Amino acid sequence: MKTRAAVAFEAKKPLEIVELDLEGPKEGEVLVEIMATGICHTDAYTLDGLDSEGIFPSVLGHEGAGIIRAVGPGVKSVKQDDHVIPLYTPECRQCKSCLSGKTNLCTAIRATQGKGVMPDGTTRMSYKGEAIYHYMGCSTFSNFIVVPEIAVAKIREDAPFDKACYCGCGVTTGVGAVTNTAKVTPGSNVIVFGLGGIGLNVIQGARMVGADKIIGVDLNDAKAEWGRKFGMTDFVNPSKIDGDIVQHLIELTDGGGDYTFDCTGNTLVMRQALEACHRGWGVSTVIGVAEAGKEISTRPFQLVTGRVWQGSAFGGMKGRTEVPKIVDWYMNGKIEIDPMITHVLKLEEINKGFDLMHAGESIRSVVVF
Amino acid sequence: MKTRAAVAFEAKKPLEIVELDLEGPKEGEVLVEIMATGICHTDAYTLDGLDSEGIFPSVLGHEGAGIIRAVGPGVKSVKQDDHVIPLYTPECRQCKSCLSGKTNLCTAIRATQGKGVMPDGTTRMSYKGEAIYHYMGCSTFSNFIVVPEIAVAKIREDAPFDKACYCGCGVTTGVGAVTNTAKVTPGSNVIVFGLGGIGLNVIQGARMVGADKIIGVDLNDAKAEWGRKFGMTDFVNPSKIDGDIVQHLIELTDGGGDYTFDCTGNTLVMRQALEACHRGWGVSTVIGVAEAGKEISTRPFQLVTGRVWQGSAFGGMKGRTEVPKIVDWYMNGKIEIDPMITHVLKLEEINKGFDLMHAGESIRSVVVF
Repeated sequence: MKTRAAVAFEAKKPLEIVELDLEGPKEGEVLVEIMATGICHTDAYTLDGLDSEGIFPSVLGHEGAGIIRAVGPGVKSVKQDDHVIPLYTPECRQCKSCLSGKTNLCTAIRATQGKGVMPDGTTRMSYKGEAIYHYMGCSTFSNFIVVPEIAVAKIREDAPFDKACYCGCGVTTGVGAVTNTAKVTPGSNVIVFGLGGIGLNVIQGARMVGADKIIGVDLNDAKAEWGRKFGMTDFVNPSKIDGDIVQHLIELTDGGGDYTFDCTGNTLVMRQALEACHRGWGVSTVIGVAEAGKEISTRPFQLVTGRVWQGSAFGGMKGRTEVPKIVDWYMNGKIEIDPMITHVLKLEEINKGFDLMHAGESIRSVVVF
Repeated sequence: MKTRAAVAFEAKKPLEIVELDLEGPKEGEVLVEIMATGICHTDAYTLDGLDSEGIFPSVLGHEGAGIIRAVGPGVKSVKQDDHVIPLYTPECRQCKSCLSGKTNLCTAIRATQGKGVMPDGTTRMSYKGEAIYHYMGCSTFSNFIVVPEIAVAKIREDAPFDKACYCGCGVTTGVGAVTNTAKVTPGSNVIVFGLGGIGLNVIQGARMVGADKIIGVDLNDAKAEWGRKFGMTDFVNPSKIDGDIVQHLIELTDGGGDYTFDCTGNTLVMRQALEACHRGWGVSTVIGVAEAGKEISTRPFQLVTGRVWQGSAFGGMKGRTEVPKIVDWYMNGKIEIDPMITHVLKLEEINKGFDLMHAGESIRSVVVF
C-alpha cells in the first residue's frame, strides 16, 4: 500500500512530503493509521544531526495516536479498529527488564529499533525501491505505520487523537517522572528546571499528587505564565537573582527541594538541580537529554550527605500498562493537555512546526492527518 | 579532672600521649570513660592534613565504647553506669532532619561539632591552659570524654567494649549502607569496590540480607581471602583482567549489579561502580570519602537509563535508635566483628596503629585503655 509521509532524507534538511510504499504487517505486527502526531524536541535533535545514532533516510515522529487497520499473523493483544498510541518504549512482558517489575525499559526489540528496522531486520517503508528507516520504532510522521504489537498501547475510544497523541511522549515523560520515577509525595517541595513542554508536565504531575511548593526555574520570564497555568507556585529567573541560583533555591525552600527535576538537557543545570536538593533526602531526577559527549559532575559529598541522583525515561511508565492510564487521567480532568497544544498543522506544514519549536513559540505543535 | 589522651598537636606529626585537663559535663552532657576505641581511616585523613576542616590541637578518634561515669544537669535519656557508644552523628529527635524520618543526618549540633567545640561553643579539654578541640564530636583517643547526651547510644552491657567500639563507625557504616541506605533485597547481585574494613562490612551486610552473588573488587589479591571470610562469592582484581572492568563486571552479573558500593574514596572507582549497575534498576551507593576538591562524573545517559547514584553516611543509621541494634546483631551472631580486629594496642602504641593502617596490614586496630 501507499502512505503519505514526511521524510527526513538527510540531516539538517527540511522534511519532504512524499508517498511511500508500505508493506503490510508481518507476524506479530500491526498496521496503524496515524490520526495525529506531536512534534517533539527529540525529532528536531535527530533532524539537526545532533544524534550520533541518527539514521537517514527515515520517517521521524514518535508521538502519535491512531487506529489499528490490520493485524499480522499471531497478533492477539489488539485487534482491528482499536485506538492506540505507538510506543517507542515497548512492553513485551517477557524480557528480564519487563519481568523485573523495576523498570519500564523493555529490551525485547532494542537492538533492531536502534538500527531503524523492524524486529526481523527489515524496513516496511520504501521510496522508489530504497529502504526508508523507522525512527524510534514509531515513525509517526507517516499516515500509516507498521509496528510490533508489543509497541502499541490500547487507549479508550473517546479520547481525541489530537490530544491523546501527546501522551505518546511529552505528557507521559513529564507526569510519569513525578508519579513513577521520583514518586513525589503530597506536601513536598518541588523544583522544576526548564519550563518547556516536559517541565510543564512535571509541574502538573506535581500538582496532581499534591505537592505544596512547585517552583519553576527558567531564563525566560515569558514561561512564568505558562508554569502558573499548570500549578507552579513560584517562578525564579536565574539571570535576575543576586548570587548563586542553588543557594537562592535552598533559601526559598528552607533547605532545598524534596524533589528536583532537570527538564533542560543542560548538564550544568543538572548539577544545579542535584545541589538544590534538600540535604538528607532530596531526590533529583534527570529527564532532559544532554548533548552527545557531555557529562554531569558533582562533589561526592553531595551524595554522601543524602541527595539521590537518578534519571527517568518515558516517565518510568510501562507503555501498554500505564499509558492508557495517563489518557484516562486526561479524560477525567486530573491533568490537562488542551492548553499545551499551541498549534495544529497539516502534514504539509510540518516544517513550520519545527520552526515554531526552534523559535520557542510553541509548547506543542500537533500534525493532524 | 585529668584524662590520659593521644593529642594531635598539629597535622602530619605523631600523636603525643599526655594528661589533659577535662571539665565535667555541663547541662545535657555526659562524662564517658572510654574503654576501647578503633583507629579509622578518617582519623588518619585528618592527621595527614587532608581534611581542609581539620582543627588542631585536638584529640582524634570517633569509634569508641565506654561507660557513663557522670551526667550533667537535665540529662534524662541515660544515666551513670550505662554502657554507650559515642556518636559522631547524633540523634536529637527534635530537628527537621530527625523528624523527617528520611535521614539519619541530625543537624542539631552540626555547626559547633564542625568547629571542634561543645554546643555551648567551648571545649571541655585543655592542656596547660590551652584549649584542646573535640574531633567529630567524640575524641575517643581520650580515656575520658564529655559529649552531649544526644550523642551517645546506649548498648547492652554484655557486649565487649573492644568489639562494640567498631560499631561506632566502620561496622555501622558498612552494614547500614546495605540495610538502610541501599536496602539490598534477598537474591540480589552485589558488587563491592574496595575490600578494606568498610568493604568487608558491606559484604557481611549483603550476606546477612540474603544477597546471591557478592562480588568483591580490589587491586590487592590478598584481600580475596578476607572477602571470602565474610560472604564474598567472587573476586575480581581489575589489574588482572583483559579489557574494561565495568564491562567485565556487567558480563559477570548478566547485565550489571543490582547494587554496587564504592568503599574506596576514589572518584574514578565511584564512576565505575555506577556504570557497573544494571540498566533499569541498579543502585550505586558511595560510601568512601573522596579527597577534597575531587568530583565524580558520568554521562547523564547512565541515569536516564535507570541507574541511581546515591551516598551513605554512617550507614544511614540513626545513632541512638539503630546502633544498639547493630550491637545486637553482633551479639546474636548475625554479623561478625572479632576476625576484623586484627590488632589490639595500648594507648602508648597508638601511632603504631596508624602505621599498620597506612601499610595496609590491619583491618582494624583497636586501642584498649
